[in-house]
Amino acid sequence: MKQINIGLLGLGNIGTGSYKTLEMNGGHIRDVVGLDLIVTRILEKDVDRKRDITVSRGIFTQDPDEIWNDPDIDVVVELLGGIEPATSFMIAAMNRGKHVVTANKAAVAANYEALTDAAARNRVMFRFEAAVGGGIPILNALTTALSANEYEEIMGILNGTTNYILTKMSEEDLPYADALREAQENGFAEADPTADVEGEDVANKLSILMSLVFGKRVRPEDIPTEGITKITKADIEGAKADGCVIKLLASAFKRGDEITCFIQPTMLNRSHPLASVGNEFNAIFVKGNAVDDLMFYGKGAGPLPTGSAVLGDVIEIGRAIAKGAAFDLNET
Amino acid sequence: MKQINIGLLGLGNIGTGSYKTLEMNGGHIRDVVGLDLIVTRILEKDVDRKRDITVSRGIFTQDPDEIWNDPDIDVVVELLGGIEPATSFMIAAMNRGKHVVTANKAAVAANYEALTDAAARNRVMFRFEAAVGGGIPILNALTTALSANEYEEIMGILNGTTNYILTKMSEEDLPYADALREAQENGFAEADPTADVEGEDVANKLSILMSLVFGKRVRPEDIPTEGITKITKADIEGAKADGCVIKLLASAFKRGDEITCFIQPTMLNRSHPLASVGNEFNAIFVKGNAVDDLMFYGKGAGPLPTGSAVLGDVIEIGRAIAKGAAFDLNET
Repeated sequence: MKQINIGLLGLGNIGTGSYKTLEMNGGHIRDVVGLDLIVTRILEKDVDRKRDITVSRGIFTQDPDEIWNDPDIDVVVELLGGIEPATSFMIAAMNRGKHVVTANKAAVAANYEALTDAAARNRVMFRFEAAVGGGIPILNALTTALSANEYEEIMGILNGTTNYILTKMSEEDLPYADALREAQENGFAEADPTADVEGEDVANKLSILMSLVFGKRVRPEDIPTEGITKITKADIEGAKADGCVIKLLASAFKRGDEITCFIQPTMLNRSHPLASVGNEFNAIFVKGNAVDDLMFYGKGAGPLPTGSAVLGDVIEIGRAIAKGAAFDLNET
Repeated sequence: MKQINIGLLGLGNIGTGSYKTLEMNGGHIRDVVGLDLIVTRILEKDVDRKRDITVSRGIFTQDPDEIWNDPDIDVVVELLGGIEPATSFMIAAMNRGKHVVTANKAAVAANYEALTDAAARNRVMFRFEAAVGGGIPILNALTTALSANEYEEIMGILNGTTNYILTKMSEEDLPYADALREAQENGFAEADPTADVEGEDVANKLSILMSLVFGKRVRPEDIPTEGITKITKADIEGAKADGCVIKLLASAFKRGDEITCFIQPTMLNRSHPLASVGNEFNAIFVKGNAVDDLMFYGKGAGPLPTGSAVLGDVIEIGRAIAKGAAFDLNET
């Protein structure tokens, strides 16, 4: 049994979900995987918030250096969100020899080279499965079991908020504003929904996917992006009349050496595998030159699905540590 | 650049597909993964068959010992099919320190303990992604990125032949016998379709899945299994009238310590994610206690999709060899 000590940055919604996943399944992970995952330090100011988890007050700190400088911490899990200070914290942790796991799509998309360079330079592992598709294990599949393929195309419904809104508009004949309000009331959209409905969140995810799938860095702000705010009831009805649904799709494809990418509301025939992906679900469609068409479907957000992806990354790092082989070999 | 030498057992349909996948993508794998995969020896009697691949005649052998005794071979890829001599060959290879990859569901399902024990005893890796779901990377996902979950349920369309027949019966209003004939004419069913249409092939796959998902060994012959031969046009029409489709589903779920499993034609509401999986496609639905519902969809058979899975396994072994860590750590 190998003990893996985790320094957790942030105990908000996602941090609490990851902690809760470990509380729930830590015993199972010990039994099945042979790793004992322990959160030994948490960077978080709000010590008193009700969280429905059991945390010893003594492991909270407000000083990130206490985490980098703790020689017993193996893995730093960054769940603060936002580009900074998250990026600087992750690089500082790697510079002190810590492996890093994050769910932070904004930071990974904005600073992909700086983060992967820091990992390579320090020979530590850097994993970010939860940053794309929430609980769907798409990044791991693309970089391991599918790596005998040249990828030709990737296309996805990568944002649960917009998919929820479009589903409500279509199924309940609601105008955009009402569907948005319903999403907000049900916890599927934030008070300020801009990053979701304008496609910025999707652009971060597509940027990360292209780095892994095509080895090509396209900054999120350079991806032609159109959100869903201009979709009308008439658009939805017109699509229906043609046997189609409208989905906010992120697409990237390669023809020769050229990569084309864009994010836009798209009419999909009802028979397309992505057409039946409803509500807050996400799905990613990928075409490889050997495996042909594949689709992955699941919950793209939420505390426990995200916790599943975060802990899956920690387990992969823990296994590599236990084998004495915890460094990346061209995996990113 | 690390060279990985492969001894290939069998150059039939799937063996040729895997060879072709490597011919097509070997350069890409060198560039992206940093591994040079080379087939250095092939056990195959039929040297002269037209295969549309370039193989040097000098690497053929009819003596399997030549493969086990070759100190330069790192990985043995078993694509003979059938329980024997495939099982004995795989164990002999592991006993000589070779890592083993197979696509052989019949052998893995029949001899799961003997094969995994041989791998553990010899500290070699044993991988069989292609045995379940063809190109769909389900086994890798279940044992790596998703391993922070306790699994509650797994359900799948695991056989392309029967799904093709049921799709034709439903979409073209064909009786069973005509749909079977069409499947045979289009290469989706064998001349003797028994193993597919009676559910034996699915039972092998469900047995393997249960070993990985629940850590519970259920022999394929102990899974209650009903095939599709008794499905009539009236059944299909009745399902349609209720807004349903009939699919041959393999199901296993856990309540407390009890695992229930069965294979049978099942009515699925059209809104179920598995209902829209048509023709020769496969899909696997899994529910974890953190990640919730997930579905994986893709081509469950065919030379290149199977080649994708086989080479994915070889690459994972090659990466571990390159890191000096090529042994399993509770991964099966």
